[in-house]
Amino acid sequence: MTIKLYDFIAAPSPLRTRIFLREKGVPYESVQVDLGSGEQLSDAFRKINPSCTVPAIVLEDGSVLNQNSAIALYLEGTYPEPPLFGRSPVDAAKVMNASSQVEMGGFMAVAEILRNSSPRMKDRALTGPENYAQIPELAERGRQRLAGFMETMNTALEGREFLAIDSFSYADITAFVAVDFAKWVKVTPDASQTHLNRWFEAVSARPSIAAAKAG
Amino acid sequence: MTIKLYDFIAAPSPLRTRIFLREKGVPYESVQVDLGSGEQLSDAFRKINPSCTVPAIVLEDGSVLNQNSAIALYLEGTYPEPPLFGRSPVDAAKVMNASSQVEMGGFMAVAEILRNSSPRMKDRALTGPENYAQIPELAERGRQRLAGFMETMNTALEGREFLAIDSFSYADITAFVAVDFAKWVKVTPDASQTHLNRWFEAVSARPSIAAAKAG
Repeated sequence: MTIKLYDFIAAPSPLRTRIFLREKGVPYESVQVDLGSGEQLSDAFRKINPSCTVPAIVLEDGSVLNQNSAIALYLEGTYPEPPLFGRSPVDAAKVMNASSQVEMGGFMAVAEILRNSSPRMKDRALTGPENYAQIPELAERGRQRLAGFMETMNTALEGREFLAIDSFSYADITAFVAVDFAKWVKVTPDASQTHLNRWFEAVSARPSIAAAKAG
Repeated sequence: MTIKLYDFIAAPSPLRTRIFLREKGVPYESVQVDLGSGEQLSDAFRKINPSCTVPAIVLEDGSVLNQNSAIALYLEGTYPEPPLFGRSPVDAAKVMNASSQVEMGGFMAVAEILRNSSPRMKDRALTGPENYAQIPELAERGRQRLAGFMETMNTALEGREFLAIDSFSYADITAFVAVDFAKWVKVTPDASQTHLNRWFEAVSARPSIAAAKAG
């Protein structure tokens, strides 16, 4: 079965899912939902995913998965090889722990900056069906948080090839996309953050990254 | 092995972990970290969990799990019965999906209200080692979001005994604690939200809830 992925080529969240699928070698059909023109808020897409977000996949019973961590668990359970949550409950927990920390501390910081400062995002300070006004202080706070995140990542990657466990995992995918997403708000790791830079370069060179970025 | 849980009796996040442990019947030792006096910021606790948060558990290799979803995966893998992520990859994904949605849409809304308005939380608008000033607009926005969350939950629970799958799951735990936590900011489900009220009453009556609330 080919996975049908509700997707948008330019957005960071579905890129996480596409990298995951490419690492697994699972074929998928990408259905573009044009976030640029607000297609995610259309009646047609609301019926598929009331949260109005991508990525989303619809299961055989018609229910929707619209959270990256849930999509990842589903794909891991359905297509176990190669493992992206390691090979034990301890591995899986370490991977989810690191990914959640990156989501909260890194990904969300970038989103706070972008959505609370970009003129294009006016009244779209949060994803979802409701409009919310921008809060400029939140963009400011996001910049502080993002600087801290880069430093935390650099420390975490000292002496390590991968972020969470001894093999490439879902946590590396989340972290790669978070650091990559930070370019949108003109933040890149400092040259002094050598561990982070070394890891980012190595992950960037994986074939799954170029393939997933292309669609 | 008895699990050593870094915990605080009055806080909502570790309550999620305690309910999970009680549902599993897994014995645990609760080590109180007094958030009231700022003990989570002490040098001693920072060495255990640099994120300065509870819940936290330390694995045998010394690494720490400090994210509820990771602790839940670890416990589910280590103590499979009774299952709290269902019995298939699809079930597990549905549970994680619902739990993540509740974390982002409900739990975080309550935290935004509380941390950005309570005088006790001055400069503690986010958990973690760094201080962040309160943003009153964020408390306001949280109230809007929380009202939407209650309505979304009510709709999701129409005709359903449990939130995510056909048995009690981790998603019900997350959602129960989110709705319970909302009392802190004086928000309760409206009497007209009958599905949500029925579900909340049924979950409240589970023995695990009273036991976990007691410690």
